[in-house]
Amino acid sequence: QEKFDPGEHQHLRYNPLRGSWVLVSAHRMKRPWKGQVEKPPEEDIPRHDPTNPLCPGSRRANGEINPNYESTFLFDNDFPALQEDAPDPGTGEHPLLQTKAARGICKVMCFHPWSDITLPLMQVSEIKTVIDKWAELIEELGPKYPWVQIFENKGAMMGCSNPHPHCQVWASSFLPNEPHMADRNQRAHLSSRGEVMLVEYARQEAEQKVRLVLESKNWLVVVPFWATWPFQTLLLPRRHVLRLPDLTSQERDDLASIMKQLLTKYDNLFEISFPYSMGWHGAPTGPHLQEDMSHWQLHAHYYPPLLRSATIRKFMVGYEMLALEQRDLTPEQAAERLRSLPEVHYKNRPK
Amino acid sequence: QEKFDPGEHQHLRYNPLRGSWVLVSAHRMKRPWKGQVEKPPEEDIPRHDPTNPLCPGSRRANGEINPNYESTFLFDNDFPALQEDAPDPGTGEHPLLQTKAARGICKVMCFHPWSDITLPLMQVSEIKTVIDKWAELIEELGPKYPWVQIFENKGAMMGCSNPHPHCQVWASSFLPNEPHMADRNQRAHLSSRGEVMLVEYARQEAEQKVRLVLESKNWLVVVPFWATWPFQTLLLPRRHVLRLPDLTSQERDDLASIMKQLLTKYDNLFEISFPYSMGWHGAPTGPHLQEDMSHWQLHAHYYPPLLRSATIRKFMVGYEMLALEQRDLTPEQAAERLRSLPEVHYKNRPK
Ligand SMILES: O=P(O)(O)O[C@H]1O[C@H](CO)[C@@H](O)[C@H](O)[C@H]1O
Ligand SMILES: O=P(O)(O)O[C@H]1O[C@H](CO)[C@@H](O)[C@H](O)[C@H]1O
Repeated sequence: QEKFDPGEHQHLRYNPLRGSWVLVSAHRMKRPWKGQVEKPPEEDIPRHDPTNPLCPGSRRANGEINPNYESTFLFDNDFPALQEDAPDPGTGEHPLLQTKAARGICKVMCFHPWSDITLPLMQVSEIKTVIDKWAELIEELGPKYPWVQIFENKGAMMGCSNPHPHCQVWASSFLPNEPHMADRNQRAHLSSRGEVMLVEYARQEAEQKVRLVLESKNWLVVVPFWATWPFQTLLLPRRHVLRLPDLTSQERDDLASIMKQLLTKYDNLFEISFPYSMGWHGAPTGPHLQEDMSHWQLHAHYYPPLLRSATIRKFMVGYEMLALEQRDLTPEQAAERLRSLPEVHYKNRPK
Repeated sequence: QEKFDPGEHQHLRYNPLRGSWVLVSAHRMKRPWKGQVEKPPEEDIPRHDPTNPLCPGSRRANGEINPNYESTFLFDNDFPALQEDAPDPGTGEHPLLQTKAARGICKVMCFHPWSDITLPLMQVSEIKTVIDKWAELIEELGPKYPWVQIFENKGAMMGCSNPHPHCQVWASSFLPNEPHMADRNQRAHLSSRGEVMLVEYARQEAEQKVRLVLESKNWLVVVPFWATWPFQTLLLPRRHVLRLPDLTSQERDDLASIMKQLLTKYDNLFEISFPYSMGWHGAPTGPHLQEDMSHWQLHAHYYPPLLRSATIRKFMVGYEMLALEQRDLTPEQAAERLRSLPEVHYKNRPK
């Protein structure tokens, strides 16, 4: 029989964090695309727009006026999905109609006073400030909430409704589905193999190199073996670290640099401001701060939707929603493309 | 304390098919939307386009010429994600780099010879023909494959790359993630409660009525208690049925009618051809045809993306990808809106 070639022959790969499988059918990249074409991201964003509620000095929906902030700026989301004082629905009237209380808090953090800048175009020191604020948020909200989800939706394609560079923080009274799976699977891995899952994984990837996008003294960026989105990446510390506040100042400097490098490569891939959703997963907090959570390893997921060009995305629809996720290029092919991209941002390239 | 009101107070609901939770925060519908606006679906589709590979008489990518079909038309996908003869990748070199063989077949089925028609505008008898073909496909592919996924991606917004009315069938040598979860959870439900999960659920919904969209002699359409997409529905037989071929001719007639009614309501909601992904889940096949699969109940999922209007969709991004799915109106509110819509298609309305 023919020899197996992952770039030619469809196969399944296992995602050990989620406990699910992904179908890799790289030969499908050859099919022509006649479907929806996206609008490329807006290019002409004004640096300051007094009507944008995220800008310094603007009035927000609740009537408050933003300070003339010069670095990051944190405020409560004016339309929060989680509030601190919702009444308890009880457990529900029937085993098939189960409910549970959900309480929490939603915040927004602007990265920079300018609307026309993004993380890859910011200074490393400015990115470091963002990282320090993220760590502070975990320290501030962690004691009260079992889960503090820091995430960034970047680009209109990812449902971001404001071009000003910002992220969100939703802290909840419950452990959501995704971290719940990651908790269960990392716990099982440590107990069966005696090593922290993502520490062992990072070592494998650092040795094999085929899925590496970037590496530094303290960090690795890989297209994970089980990536579902075309150019999905996983950002991992080499050392065993539970949560963002545990990072040393040197590790944060290094993180700021590697984030800038990764996001520059992303922007360079199709020479646009690359859309994605990203977020941090660290060990759960709240009551878990008192527990042994050493099976966890801090990591960030980047989920970008684009597949072929600035305007052609991967659709996770039909088969993906009803059966299983399918990808059209191998993680190794994606890593190689990202690796080969320049580390100078296309906007700063000498003409 | 204030009394709990699902339309005002966020809470979690449990999806017993997937074993996961969804966050319902209906108060968030009040926020203004300044994000991406979609192109409404194309209106001027020619009835016959000789360059469209799905039309009768057209040449397809593999050089074959379609017959001048007058009803449904089935052919092998020219760019299949699953092929019958891919070599086996083995189990992988490391527990964190696990692979598995994936074999299968991908087919496309046109519903009708015209490109400018959709299921809700077809005759009930024509829809019945589609249902009969679906049942035949399960009978034909079922003996060989453990899972035969019938699904329709409708609309460019759902990654559909051809406006001609069609569905796809991907049959696989493995049980994909979603049916795997549904299998495990339905099995556990039957053994713990002594009743088939979705038979018990349908009875509850038929009694409570708040989440009912449509009912007929043999079928129910509900916005499930745990719906994640704004106007998601679940189509269920009242009787215990394992798979599509088990439906009687009367049940198929009745199904054709209720599908026409549901899809007419969907189109009437925003007065456009309503985009969605839909698919059938019946008991697994292949070796499972010889096993007791009585914990299964046949059902179809409809996952439509639109939220507020013909051009404003729900984005399942950031928090949804990294933590847990969140919805902006209650399933009861969605059911009430769908219920109240006329059953005459807006295109056939007397002027
Ligand atoms: O097969 P199609 O219609 O070309 O492609 C569409 O459906 C597939 C199955 O859901 C997806 O994998 C693709 O991303 C989507 O664009
Ligand atoms: O909060 P935003 O940016 O208005 O909204 C965006 O992010 C949320 C959290 O991922 C999603 O629930 C929304 O669908 C999306 O549009």
